[in-house]
Amino acid sequence: MSEPFDAVDVIKAKRDGGRLSEAQIDWVIDAYTRGVVAEEQMAALAMAVFWRGLEPAELARWTLAMLNSGERLDFSGLGRPTADKHSTGGVGDKITLPLGPLVASCGVAVPQLSGRGLGHTGGTLDKLESIPGWRAALTNQEMRRQLADVGAVICQAGSGLAPADRKLYALRDVTGTVDCIPLIASSIMSKKIAEGTAALVLDVKCGSGAFMRDFDSAHELARTMVGIGAAHGVATTALITDMSTPLGLTAGNALEVRESVEVLAGGGPKDVVDLTLALAREMLASAGVEADPADNLANGKAMDVWRRMIAAQGGDPAAELPWAKHTHDVVAEASGTLARLDALQVGVAAWRLGAGRARKEDPVQAGAGVVMHAKPGDQVSAGQPLMTLHTDTPDRFERALEALDGAWTISQEPFEASPVVLDRVA
Amino acid sequence: MSEPFDAVDVIKAKRDGGRLSEAQIDWVIDAYTRGVVAEEQMAALAMAVFWRGLEPAELARWTLAMLNSGERLDFSGLGRPTADKHSTGGVGDKITLPLGPLVASCGVAVPQLSGRGLGHTGGTLDKLESIPGWRAALTNQEMRRQLADVGAVICQAGSGLAPADRKLYALRDVTGTVDCIPLIASSIMSKKIAEGTAALVLDVKCGSGAFMRDFDSAHELARTMVGIGAAHGVATTALITDMSTPLGLTAGNALEVRESVEVLAGGGPKDVVDLTLALAREMLASAGVEADPADNLANGKAMDVWRRMIAAQGGDPAAELPWAKHTHDVVAEASGTLARLDALQVGVAAWRLGAGRARKEDPVQAGAGVVMHAKPGDQVSAGQPLMTLHTDTPDRFERALEALDGAWTISQEPFEASPVVLDRVA
Repeated sequence: MSEPFDAVDVIKAKRDGGRLSEAQIDWVIDAYTRGVVAEEQMAALAMAVFWRGLEPAELARWTLAMLNSGERLDFSGLGRPTADKHSTGGVGDKITLPLGPLVASCGVAVPQLSGRGLGHTGGTLDKLESIPGWRAALTNQEMRRQLADVGAVICQAGSGLAPADRKLYALRDVTGTVDCIPLIASSIMSKKIAEGTAALVLDVKCGSGAFMRDFDSAHELARTMVGIGAAHGVATTALITDMSTPLGLTAGNALEVRESVEVLAGGGPKDVVDLTLALAREMLASAGVEADPADNLANGKAMDVWRRMIAAQGGDPAAELPWAKHTHDVVAEASGTLARLDALQVGVAAWRLGAGRARKEDPVQAGAGVVMHAKPGDQVSAGQPLMTLHTDTPDRFERALEALDGAWTISQEPFEASPVVLDRVA
Repeated sequence: MSEPFDAVDVIKAKRDGGRLSEAQIDWVIDAYTRGVVAEEQMAALAMAVFWRGLEPAELARWTLAMLNSGERLDFSGLGRPTADKHSTGGVGDKITLPLGPLVASCGVAVPQLSGRGLGHTGGTLDKLESIPGWRAALTNQEMRRQLADVGAVICQAGSGLAPADRKLYALRDVTGTVDCIPLIASSIMSKKIAEGTAALVLDVKCGSGAFMRDFDSAHELARTMVGIGAAHGVATTALITDMSTPLGLTAGNALEVRESVEVLAGGGPKDVVDLTLALAREMLASAGVEADPADNLANGKAMDVWRRMIAAQGGDPAAELPWAKHTHDVVAEASGTLARLDALQVGVAAWRLGAGRARKEDPVQAGAGVVMHAKPGDQVSAGQPLMTLHTDTPDRFERALEALDGAWTISQEPFEASPVVLDRVA
């Protein structure tokens, strides 16, 4: 088959700062998916995009081309609006767990396709898999039926969604082209639009534990993704949220499920509750539903959907969750105000304790992780436990403690923690 | 075997504008040659180098690493100095043919490894292969013996020289990273230094028929290569020469051999003679030999070396060279001064007539090409032939004539041709 373009011409056009045509973008993504554009050619193009960027119209088309590389789910016939949330990932970020059931309890269906963790940020599926019996893999039919019956589903993305993105993501990982806003934004948005949601709320994190370290980069990523959503008719808003310190008081799989259940029971740490409610309000507003989600945390309706959601995927919502076999306390060296607790360092510690994986094929420990006993702004006393480390394999304590070296500051000055939501982009 | 670096870290360092360490450069070139650094990783790195460049010290090390990927010839035991010339390629550039024997006739050995042509510029080996019996492939032993006996050799580069460059060149060709001065310079210089010459003269062409279209780019490439040569102890100078119009009056394989023989016989077009002598003087000066090469064109000594050089490689220097079967005259449409004759267009015409190839595996016609009857600055009369096209396949005339559309200007104003040598870099 004769190809309408030559890959070298497309690479050179972007390399020289030009704007790719819609036909060039459609072709290069399709030809890459077919293997006609070679890995080394896409690598050169990805680096040229890293250098030169993509204009909004190019980026919208690039996303569409990735979307069109695979199937697109359609939940328009459910009889109720749909909304989804995507987080760029952070330490202790268990928000998907209470959020899906909460929003579903207010009458909006939440089709949430999630992934496993790699590196210092945990994965939603890893967390839920600490619940005995729960399974991540659903067929499209099972997903649709559960959305109709329960209103919320959290499951593994099938291989049919945006295969171009899967191929390109693996390539970017080995070619130093991961941290490029247009490529990140199109990767996320192509998958989220393929999920068939009508409304989308993005939780773009910034700070040491996040992919975007600073506010400006996070804001640019948020604006870029909101623009792509708008270009594809998906009502998209974004919250920029703080990830300089872990979210909540736990980082680790079963530990985070327990904390999520506390939130669903009307309790839980303030930052987790605040962010869950803020994201729920965005999702409900985007879906056009007027309801105060706080009510459904207080009255048990969100908890009810959670139990049904877990049970529908084979899990026992009443089962005792696993605990790690060994613990080790980390104590405060002084009295004062905890003025800093670094998200990245806590995330790396939890990862090293066994909560995360270094390679895709590694197993994770359900019970491993870090429980925090104080957050920035809290008063601490010399000798009190600041954190408790949990693992099944006590030889990991040493490297986890190394990761925590210098991770916190105890100050004699008063310190007030910043709010979790820093900005909103719509 | 554990690798000392990770390719992604090296790519990111260059991507972010950093300077690569010597150890990183040595490793990345070696690991790429071994296949440990994948093609897509080198493609991303090449694009990052295209973007960020290489500092002189990085570039010298990059060249050394490519050089060290293969064997390095050593002609230091010949008992006479060695010098070589490299041209960046142009239309009608047959200078290597008279130059090698001329310099050898003055007492300097010339080990000239050459290539075949691709696209609109001809290849030295293609030209010499129009001589019945002449063969391009010599072993290292044959090359050394001929250098000792005759003083000049023009042969095909063996596969053992700079294999990293061969691999990288093929990759750059498909990834839009060819026209990048540090990568061009290191590619040329790694091969030339591997040849084992003690002195090197570069003929860096600029103008429409050259790889470098403008003087500034050509000057930058020349400075870059001279710098690499100096860093590796090879006495290197460069001439920047004009390639806005073809060199001499012929473009085509056997046609150019005839013109070269005219120069060796003391005749030939002024620009070819001027450039041959200018390059010969540079080579002799770099090699520390005091001689006027013009004498050896006049007294037949250069011709004598030519005949021995051709005969040593199986060729018959007295044989009749092939002529193309068909010719077609292109006539002047007006009388006046020829003020422009475009090198690229003449080169493309010669290529289309069969003198060059579009793909590496294509054959070339020995007799095909373009004979020019006037050069810029010459007076022409309406109706006189400006050029004669030669080919064995007359169906090619039409596309050759298309290539020549608008290729010349006949002016009523006086016009003086510029000198062929534009600048010198040492």
